This record gives sequence, structure tokens and C-alpha cells, in this order.
Amino acid sequence: MPCLLPFGKGREFLKKALILSYLGTAYHGWQRQKNGMTIQQKLEEAIESVCKVKTPLSGCGRTDAGVHAEVYVASAFIDTGIPDEKLPYALNTALPDDISVKRAVTVPDDFDARFSCKSKEYTYRILNAPFRDPFLSDRAYFYPKKLDAGAMQKAARFFVGKHDFSAVRSLGTPVRSPVRTIYYLTVEKKGDIIEIKACADGFLYNMVRAISGTLVFCGCGKIDPLSIPEILASRDRERGGPTAPACGLYLTALSYGMENIDVNSVKK
Amino acid sequence: MPCLLPFGKGREFLKKALILSYLGTAYHGWQRQKNGMTIQQKLEEAIESVCKVKTPLSGCGRTDAGVHAEVYVASAFIDTGIPDEKLPYALNTALPDDISVKRAVTVPDDFDARFSCKSKEYTYRILNAPFRDPFLSDRAYFYPKKLDAGAMQKAARFFVGKHDFSAVRSLGTPVRSPVRTIYYLTVEKKGDIIEIKACADGFLYNMVRAISGTLVFCGCGKIDPLSIPEILASRDRERGGPTAPACGLYLTALSYGMENIDVNSVKK
Repeated sequence: MPCLLPFGKGREFLKKALILSYLGTAYHGWQRQKNGMTIQQKLEEAIESVCKVKTPLSGCGRTDAGVHAEVYVASAFIDTGIPDEKLPYALNTALPDDISVKRAVTVPDDFDARFSCKSKEYTYRILNAPFRDPFLSDRAYFYPKKLDAGAMQKAARFFVGKHDFSAVRSLGTPVRSPVRTIYYLTVEKKGDIIEIKACADGFLYNMVRAISGTLVFCGCGKIDPLSIPEILASRDRERGGPTAPACGLYLTALSYGMENIDVNSVKK
Repeated sequence: MPCLLPFGKGREFLKKALILSYLGTAYHGWQRQKNGMTIQQKLEEAIESVCKVKTPLSGCGRTDAGVHAEVYVASAFIDTGIPDEKLPYALNTALPDDISVKRAVTVPDDFDARFSCKSKEYTYRILNAPFRDPFLSDRAYFYPKKLDAGAMQKAARFFVGKHDFSAVRSLGTPVRSPVRTIYYLTVEKKGDIIEIKACADGFLYNMVRAISGTLVFCGCGKIDPLSIPEILASRDRERGGPTAPACGLYLTALSYGMENIDVNSVKK
């Protein structure tokens, strides 16, 4: 991803990685767009206001409208006299309460938040209780009918490994290949919350939400967990469960294989 | 508290207790008022819309603007053909997402959510971390300077018991006596969150927030924990710490000493 470096005497542009978290409810996702406010735009505006430099950010993923990030990494060439350890405080003064920068790190010039990322973990949260919870509105998928977490766990293991995931994605931006490797896919019941965790080398558009919707269908008996291998092999989106709502999805971990970008150390 | 019972043939008004929870951010507290929407008004409007009856609710406490309730009990005479087990679902269809009724119970006519309450527990949550957390905005008091939870615990024990709490309340509606009994007051550190739990037979206006503010001052060295007995004895509000912000306060437990109003069973 090319970065436009404006020329100027004595200006030193260093590649920075910013580690942040955000509540996605109020935004049209990460990526800048014409109609609607995005996290990328808010952060670029904050950088411009604090560092007096216009810089296009590269983000670790294109989270959709309403999707949250407990951790997110964005990178850009930034010229600023503010030291890395003070940069988050400075940026937060120019950001709304639902976005918080927690670390800034100077990285090699060829680092890119998107392309240097080795793996990502998303967590999908389902509130499986008879009544909605005011504290989880827009923060979990409220599913009142009792789900069989055991059936969901049984289904989950079939997604693990290297597969063509065409059956569980939405058609968005064209990608070179629908093949991805899922390192783990777990289903855990914590009280009224069912938590699905998916870690992969990368995800297709809406893949975690389509897998979560498919697991919900396994949990309520609409899909037989043992039919997952067949559904995956069919490459037919019609065979999988529905795409679960955005509000339940969180980006929860990232790995760059670099010591100084240990994103998990900034997680709450 | 008198309940106006309209006359009508074949109408049977039964006293009901409603157990609910709400996120207080959008409201001007529990109690109905002229300027601003309140939870009481929303709930009375929902009852009117669903049960076709206007009824004044009695609430277990007057939570302030921005204060939350994991559990709350309201009571009223309600005439409805809807059975108790279905009433919460019906009322929730007429309520916004930030208010959720979780149980309805028919109680004796002399039950009153406020006056029958034996004890209440409030929890005050402080985010004690260098950076704000987008997921706790309006849900915890963000205090970035490191607090000494040990000093707070040391101070907390002096509040327990029967005391005149004039030094830790705001002057609001006049009350007969400033004496209350605190059954327990605990301070617990859970990661970046410091949680203060206070249980008493009743609380004076802003009492939990003033105690929390005083404990924060003990945690940052501005008040010596050992001076709490003297501060309480002074009955002087100026001697205590500040009133901590409303957003950190949650009503978390209620006791009525009645088997069928086991409010804690509906907690998340």
C-alpha cells in the first residue's frame, strides 16, 4: 500500500503502528467512505489535528458497520515531534469516547497493518437468555431460543484447517482465493453468553458472521453438525446458516510476530 | 404510598412487582419529572400501552440521572388478563432496548417496592487504567491515576455499621434521620476495574457516590484512611471526598425477605 510522502525540509516521516480499540455502534465500519462516519476518518482527522499532517492510514481489517474492536492496528507514516509514549494521550484528546488509542510504536518502513498481519482472532458473542439485557444492546446478538452449545462445538471443529470457505462468506470485494486456514474455532458458554472464537490467517467478507450464523443453526437444530463438511465442500452460500448480525462481532486479537507490537498487552 | 384504584365492573387490580434492569445513560433517573425522560415514565407508558391501565408505579429507589440498575423493583396495582409469566415479554415490546423487564410477580396488596425493601446493594465501578476504554464509556468512572486499592479497603471498613452519614451525602429531599446501617462495604480490584460494593438498610442522597469519592481520595493519598472515623463523626460534608460521577454507579442487589421476589435470580 503506497504512502504519499510530502516533501519538506527537516520533516522526518516515520512509520508508526497505532494500537487502538473502539465500540463500532456509531460507525459505518473502519474504512473511509462517502456516506457516513468511519473509524478511519475519525483517526485520520485526529492525526491531522494533533500532528498537523494528512496521512492515509492502513488498517488491519475492514470491520463492517456496527462491528467492534477490542484491539485494532492501523499504520501510517507520521511526522511528529511527539514521542511514541505520549502520542496515544495526544490523539485521544482529539477522538470521541468510543475510540481509544492505547499504544503507538515506531515500526520498520515496510510494516503495514494489513499486509504484515499474520493472524487475527474474532469473537462472536450471543446473548442466549429469555430476556434482552440492556447492558448488551448493540454488544451481543440476542437469541432468546435455547441453543445447544454442545452441538455448536461439534460443528465448529469441522471448520478448522485449510478450506475453501465459499459456503460461509458474502460476496464483496473480489479476492484472489476463497481458501483460508482457520487455526482454531471454539464455542464456549459463559453464563447466558455463548462466545465463538475464530482465529485464521485471514477471513473472507462476512466469514465469521456466516460461520456464527451457521453454528447458531446447528445449536437450534436447523442444521445437523455432521453436515458441515458437506456444506463446506458444496461451496454454496445457500447451504450455510444466515449471516449473524454485526453487533455481536469483536476483533479480539492480532498477531504480527513482532515483539514490539504485542497487541494483547493493551487489551482490557 | 396510595394507589388510585379506578372503579369498573369485573376489573381485578392485583398488586404486581416488576423486576427489571436498565442502562441509565439516556435517562434523567428513575423518578418522573417535568423536564426529561425517566425510566418510571417509560415503564408507566409501557404498562398503559399493554394493559390499558394508567397506574402510578412505586420504585425501589430514586436512582439519579446516568445511574444504572442491574436489578430494580417497581410495584403497582395492575389490572390485566396477561399472566405474570408472559407480562415481561409483553411489556418489553413496548419498552426501548435499554430497559428490560425480566419478571412479574403477584404480591400482597401491602407490598411496596420502596417501603418493603429490607436492604440494597450498590456497586461503584472505577476504570483505573492509563487509557479510557470505549466499552466502559458512561459505564465506569475513568480515573487514570494509579489508585491504592489496599488503602481504599482499609478506609472502607470504617464505614461499616450504624452511623450518622451526614459527612457523605448531598442535601436533597429532607429525610427524618441521617443514620443508616451499612452491612458491608468492600473494595475489590479486578484487572483494571476497582469495584466498590455497598450494602445497607438504606442510603442517603448521593451517599454511595460520596463514599466512593472519599475512597478514591484515600486511594490517591489525599485522605488518610485512618481519618475516616473522624470525618464521619464531624458530620461535615466538606471533610469527605467529592461525589463520584453517576456513570460508575449500579444498583446490583435488593432484598425483600420474600421467596417469590428473589431478584438476584434474574441478574445476568
